[in-house]
Amino acid sequence: MTTVGILGAGQLAMMLSQAAATLGVKTLCLAASADECAGQVAPLCVVPTADPAAWESFVAQVDVLTLETENVILDLATFMSARKPLCPNLESLAVSQDRGYEKALFQSQGIRTAPYSLVDSLNELKQAAEDLGLPAILKTRRFGYDGKGQIRLSTVDDITRAWNELGKHPLILEGFMRFERELSLIGARSTQGDMAFYPLTENWHEHGILVKSEAPFLQAQLQAEAEDYMRSIMLGLDYVGVLAIEFFLVEGQLVANEMAPRVHNTGHWTIEGAKTSQFEQHIRAITGMPLGSTEVLGHSVMHNCIGMMPDKAEILSQPHAYYHDYGKAPRPGRKLGHITVVTPR
Amino acid sequence: MTTVGILGAGQLAMMLSQAAATLGVKTLCLAASADECAGQVAPLCVVPTADPAAWESFVAQVDVLTLETENVILDLATFMSARKPLCPNLESLAVSQDRGYEKALFQSQGIRTAPYSLVDSLNELKQAAEDLGLPAILKTRRFGYDGKGQIRLSTVDDITRAWNELGKHPLILEGFMRFERELSLIGARSTQGDMAFYPLTENWHEHGILVKSEAPFLQAQLQAEAEDYMRSIMLGLDYVGVLAIEFFLVEGQLVANEMAPRVHNTGHWTIEGAKTSQFEQHIRAITGMPLGSTEVLGHSVMHNCIGMMPDKAEILSQPHAYYHDYGKAPRPGRKLGHITVVTPR
Repeated sequence: MTTVGILGAGQLAMMLSQAAATLGVKTLCLAASADECAGQVAPLCVVPTADPAAWESFVAQVDVLTLETENVILDLATFMSARKPLCPNLESLAVSQDRGYEKALFQSQGIRTAPYSLVDSLNELKQAAEDLGLPAILKTRRFGYDGKGQIRLSTVDDITRAWNELGKHPLILEGFMRFERELSLIGARSTQGDMAFYPLTENWHEHGILVKSEAPFLQAQLQAEAEDYMRSIMLGLDYVGVLAIEFFLVEGQLVANEMAPRVHNTGHWTIEGAKTSQFEQHIRAITGMPLGSTEVLGHSVMHNCIGMMPDKAEILSQPHAYYHDYGKAPRPGRKLGHITVVTPR
Repeated sequence: MTTVGILGAGQLAMMLSQAAATLGVKTLCLAASADECAGQVAPLCVVPTADPAAWESFVAQVDVLTLETENVILDLATFMSARKPLCPNLESLAVSQDRGYEKALFQSQGIRTAPYSLVDSLNELKQAAEDLGLPAILKTRRFGYDGKGQIRLSTVDDITRAWNELGKHPLILEGFMRFERELSLIGARSTQGDMAFYPLTENWHEHGILVKSEAPFLQAQLQAEAEDYMRSIMLGLDYVGVLAIEFFLVEGQLVANEMAPRVHNTGHWTIEGAKTSQFEQHIRAITGMPLGSTEVLGHSVMHNCIGMMPDKAEILSQPHAYYHDYGKAPRPGRKLGHITVVTPR
């Protein structure tokens, strides 16, 4: 029986493990602590700090490696991928970790992005703000998520303050885009090179955190364009696994915002809303199985449960609602679960 | 967070645990050995032989108890139910364990059964065979499953041989019924007394083992009748949890064959074929949550994988098929997994 090693043990690792178990695939999750939520459904290998001896023992137990976050220390990923196949590969991970590389990749594939400048000094930041105009958003190139590591610059007065806060990291200044919608495309490429794409999903963020996704967003031309973009990125990177690209819709056109080399929060609706969930799809893709159908089973709306869970009995009394509790301790701003409502087409 | 203790750790406990985890409910499975398949997705409490000290430590860790088989030692169930709520209750379990009690219960509720005689001696067996006529089926009253503990008597010559084989157990002789179909009804009753029923399922057995189930079997009058039967049994037993009743269809009429106080193999299609799976429904029922919708999502056919798993890639390349591998070691006659094909209505 194949064992997939997952670098991480949060809710994405949890849902990957659940899908894997049904397919007869074992998982082992590399966790920083024993209380990480994937431990509820799969064995953990707890390694609190960087420890190559423990890494060695972890990798010896698995056949193929994957990840649930792009914020994996590159040392760890490099160590692992020297020993077992890492899906997606190191290049895909390295590009996704860095907003600068990501933008360069998008542009090299002819995919529109927001105007941007890489920024390594206060002077460069001032120049970039002048070139791009304000408002603009200053972001760390690496290790940002859920709106962390981002500051909006509205006036020139904000520049020095933002630099003082973030300037110790490599930065990128992105021109502010007034967008009509936020969309994401989730797709998969298997070890055999087969590809499959879900329909576009529309997303809503608050304070940088995803609060709601709705699918399918049906617009044939945008769908075809988004798939073309993802196809070219997957081929360029020899990508294997599920990939997500987030887009802004600006004056009717897709502008790539960022990509995530993994299953994605905006794809949680696929658990009940599509023939094959993104989690099963990822396990199929990286274990050399045929990809599953991405056909939708209705209209899905997914709500994230942030900071606290809603009343369980109330949700469970709704006939079209599906309740997902990750079993995590409540904390403000933390994703604790999600609710998907699937209504028949 | 609620913890459900499951007496058993096979595939039913595995699928119950998977459903529970998504609802934010923990499970702990009482296992006879560390390699039982539920251990892939939930923690096990391994107790190889009857050991009240170990039972005590198990029951101390859980809030509510349930079971995945009616073949639980009654001592164990009694011990447990004296300490924490057991759902279904001890009476429901005791009746389901014994084909004699079961038949008596069916008859007391006005539910047709095959003609039968309880048999405790060779003379009683001879008399019963004369009364009921041959062919007839001699069964152990307790601890039979998957066709085990049953011998068909075709001629009087079979009587002594069958007695010699099974006579050390309490027995029941059942008149042979020529049936048109095998059907089952799966329903649930919650701690609040709410009830919900799935549509009837048609089933096919080979050598006493379920090989295929198909749902929904749509026949409004039979559905109403079967639900009435289950409702009266649930109320009579103050039953809580999922219950299955197997029927023969004989000359267009339902004849109750047996009941199972648990999630049931003939309900596995509900995982993808109904809004709420029987596993989630059971967890909802016993943890005091509202019951979920039993609406079907298509036409489902479930095939058991017995003795060996089919080619995984071949199954996964079928767009309407769902592959379930319990991760058990292959052995002739052993249920290793199931495949459900759901086609849209």
